[in-house]
Amino acid sequence: MSQERLIYVPLGGAGEIGMNMYAYGWGVPGKERFILVDVGVTFPSMNGTPGVDLIVADPGWIADQADRLDGIFITHAHEDHIGGLGMIFDRLSAPIYCRRFTGMVARAKMADWNRDEDQITVLPPYPDMTDVGPFKVGILPVSHSIPEAGGLVIDTPKGRIVHTGDLKLDPSPIVGDPFNPAMLREVAKPGVKALVCDSTNVFSPLPGRSESELREPIRDLIATAEGLAVATTFASNIARLKTLAQAGVEAGRSVCVLGRSMQRMLRFARDAELLGDFPPVVDLEEAQDIPRQNLMLLVTGSQGERRAASAHLANGKYLGFTMKEGDMFLFSSKTIPGNEIEVGRIINAFAAQGVRVVDDSSGLYHVSGHANRPDLEQVHDLLAPEVLIPMHGEYRHLLEHANLGKAKGIPSLVVPNGAIADLTSKHPQIVEHVDAGRVYLDGSELIGAYDGIVLNRIRMATRGMVAASVILEDDALLGVWVETIGLPDPHKGREDLADLVEREMEDEIDLIPAKTLRRDDDVIERLERRIAHICRDLIGKKPVVRVLLNRLEAESG
Amino acid sequence: MSQERLIYVPLGGAGEIGMNMYAYGWGVPGKERFILVDVGVTFPSMNGTPGVDLIVADPGWIADQADRLDGIFITHAHEDHIGGLGMIFDRLSAPIYCRRFTGMVARAKMADWNRDEDQITVLPPYPDMTDVGPFKVGILPVSHSIPEAGGLVIDTPKGRIVHTGDLKLDPSPIVGDPFNPAMLREVAKPGVKALVCDSTNVFSPLPGRSESELREPIRDLIATAEGLAVATTFASNIARLKTLAQAGVEAGRSVCVLGRSMQRMLRFARDAELLGDFPPVVDLEEAQDIPRQNLMLLVTGSQGERRAASAHLANGKYLGFTMKEGDMFLFSSKTIPGNEIEVGRIINAFAAQGVRVVDDSSGLYHVSGHANRPDLEQVHDLLAPEVLIPMHGEYRHLLEHANLGKAKGIPSLVVPNGAIADLTSKHPQIVEHVDAGRVYLDGSELIGAYDGIVLNRIRMATRGMVAASVILEDDALLGVWVETIGLPDPHKGREDLADLVEREMEDEIDLIPAKTLRRDDDVIERLERRIAHICRDLIGKKPVVRVLLNRLEAESG
Repeated sequence: MSQERLIYVPLGGAGEIGMNMYAYGWGVPGKERFILVDVGVTFPSMNGTPGVDLIVADPGWIADQADRLDGIFITHAHEDHIGGLGMIFDRLSAPIYCRRFTGMVARAKMADWNRDEDQITVLPPYPDMTDVGPFKVGILPVSHSIPEAGGLVIDTPKGRIVHTGDLKLDPSPIVGDPFNPAMLREVAKPGVKALVCDSTNVFSPLPGRSESELREPIRDLIATAEGLAVATTFASNIARLKTLAQAGVEAGRSVCVLGRSMQRMLRFARDAELLGDFPPVVDLEEAQDIPRQNLMLLVTGSQGERRAASAHLANGKYLGFTMKEGDMFLFSSKTIPGNEIEVGRIINAFAAQGVRVVDDSSGLYHVSGHANRPDLEQVHDLLAPEVLIPMHGEYRHLLEHANLGKAKGIPSLVVPNGAIADLTSKHPQIVEHVDAGRVYLDGSELIGAYDGIVLNRIRMATRGMVAASVILEDDALLGVWVETIGLPDPHKGREDLADLVEREMEDEIDLIPAKTLRRDDDVIERLERRIAHICRDLIGKKPVVRVLLNRLEAESG
Repeated sequence: MSQERLIYVPLGGAGEIGMNMYAYGWGVPGKERFILVDVGVTFPSMNGTPGVDLIVADPGWIADQADRLDGIFITHAHEDHIGGLGMIFDRLSAPIYCRRFTGMVARAKMADWNRDEDQITVLPPYPDMTDVGPFKVGILPVSHSIPEAGGLVIDTPKGRIVHTGDLKLDPSPIVGDPFNPAMLREVAKPGVKALVCDSTNVFSPLPGRSESELREPIRDLIATAEGLAVATTFASNIARLKTLAQAGVEAGRSVCVLGRSMQRMLRFARDAELLGDFPPVVDLEEAQDIPRQNLMLLVTGSQGERRAASAHLANGKYLGFTMKEGDMFLFSSKTIPGNEIEVGRIINAFAAQGVRVVDDSSGLYHVSGHANRPDLEQVHDLLAPEVLIPMHGEYRHLLEHANLGKAKGIPSLVVPNGAIADLTSKHPQIVEHVDAGRVYLDGSELIGAYDGIVLNRIRMATRGMVAASVILEDDALLGVWVETIGLPDPHKGREDLADLVEREMEDEIDLIPAKTLRRDDDVIERLERRIAHICRDLIGKKPVVRVLLNRLEAESG
């Protein structure tokens, strides 16, 4: 019989920034007991996942062992850590642990999917520790761009693991927990076997800046606004919302929050008693009666999301508000790679309306929620782990972070999604690989990334589509009907593509030997190939083709 | 009868960075004679233009007056200035004027579309001027990131216009024409009525850097490469290719150029006698026998293009070359907004292979080809125009550039795509708007952006597709056949979506009154709506639906 082992298995998040899901296990191989950390999503795009609603790490491997899953920890309430919780909870069915604010968002995620919200247990922060299966786990308060973010202190039979979650070292984060080096030193005291650490900003060479540094620049900026002042940031960045609202109030403006997700996050923060001296806000109806030079709007849509308030405002009107010359629009946010075009579209629309658009290019109006390179080194130093395992990054981030650790003499191991790292011994290594793909939420269905469904949609998007119905009665052709969708007609000649294809199909069917004509699959294959070729010749595109073959019995007519 | 007027009409390029096409006209309104400047393309993306091959500004307005188009000037050989020349030349049919290197690329563009290459006339540069219709035009040598870029000096009956094309102020551009302030002063002597000026880098606050500044950093970098050294840049940036090749040779490496477009550009540059002391390169066969530490590859694909050499190398193997630990890959280029994900994919793939990836984030290995904000001010100062008209930019760039001019007392006018600016008087203004959209090359067809063809493809990509054939004989249903494409099956129950839809269709047809059943359009509309609803209920998606209704005559059976 094999010996017990301690394993770390990233299922998502170690190969992309998004869809975080990490498993820790202890036990005899194949019989380990587990905790899972985070159940996050990543977002689809036309380029690769058109029509998909959300993407979550494939939970298959851990779901197959769900009877040995003792708990799910959610480090914080960002979508890339919590967004998949309701969606795949039925495949995990284990108690959920998190901090209070995170718990509120988690309950909403569970409710969205009709899951049992009472599965959620709110834990007090470290130094409090909770027994979960073979582990003792404490949630370590860390600062990030959302309230009550947590790292995890995981005491295992082989020693202590620290899983940072997303963190920055902010001594004055406005809302939430300041960086507390003394607590990290305290955590490090028994020795840290492994540090599993955020890698997002490993390429940022300067020390991270504090949320509190934004207060003056934002205040000074808003004071210069002439007409309506509007600002956007991430809905869950309560500290930033507070800074923005305070700047508005100090400039003599009433502040109104537009956008459902922002209002919801503020409500959670209020319920969790995190708002403190957040200035009073006015509701929509009041706001509509306030002169624009006396009003500031906080709106959703910092990433150019088409359905968010910023896009609606850019396109014309939103809830009675229209932007005009002399107004100001502030992006107190960074554009996430991939969203440049959408954000640019909004900036251009505002520019065309004479709106003064201010973004974070000056570095004055946004700070990141992640530890920069020197901050990461500080975390390494404080925790002095036996091994560093970078997480929360694309491969290049993980590798760079590992190199950073190695340069300082810390053994560092890149463990990508799907690798099982055995941490039992002094020399952790990757020992196995498991299936770690992606699952798509598509309408109401969960589908695999390799099911071919989305691939077919991409094919239709790039090639267009021909649907053809053929009616045969024994060897006789009774009818052909063709529809083209998403295809141009040929510019030469006066006939539609569909008509041309119909005629060619009739000719082709005439050429099919009677014997072949009785075999459905052969007829369909031959016709589909012929149609694709006709289209290529006529319009230079080889479409997706479906022939619907209908065979009538002779006696049925 | 109206008076003669001088007009400027941007058809593309004044609202995006790409697909440049500008018209200048002189004459009685509606009877002006024209010159056209540039016939560029912009590139499609899955997000908005899936399956499209190229995008060009809609030439409709100028094509309708092509009998009064006296000449087409191509400022330089970048795709966003020359890429649409062959594609839409048959709708313009006017003599083409450009410099020598540009002419070589232009001939290739014409040949690709079987157009008459002899329409191209290579002109000597300014101070040489050529009579074209009512204008005298000279091509002003400017520095840019491609050889022999040109601005235009256009002498009109109402004074001199300077159209900058794309330019930077590079005193030592390695290849091509250095910045020549004396020549600009000379151009300005008779007075400049209007300066139509590149706006690309108006948001870059520092003076632009010279191509020659890259030589040492790139040389020093390549000298540190251990295994294979590979560098990518834009294929047409001959100066950069020279700098890279020289760095390779100085590091004791043989240099080999991979990628068709790069080889073609080098051939043109050689034919135009622009290569000067470009180091000798080895061909592919030789390169394959050279030890990797003695070899440097120059490859295409700086924007992560899927079919270019860099992507192939990242994915494994290309022409016998494989990247390994210890190799270096240099992006001597900037990532154009929108390409971040594709470029990131390549960087991650190389990182996973242990390849050292170097990009331009240090600012050491790439310089822009466009004038930065202070450089633009220098151009304004040198030419002292009566009016500044920003071009070559998104709306925000045009606006910022106009504000920059106004701040210095230069009247500045934003003229977006489709606006007709009347420059006749001392106070230019926008007097009309014409249709200025986009035309897509889709396979071998040119289609309008609003034809609905691409919209249908986007719909299929996001919603999936159901094709259904129904066979009716008078009121009797003879058969139903359904195919779903790009749609998941419902997870509840054991039946396929197609089977479920077929059954529901049969039920639905039973419910259709006999009278309605005789009207094809009504039957189709009712069934298509029903199918969409069934799918929404079953899988949460409302697909694109096409019902192919086949009606058999009773006597045909």
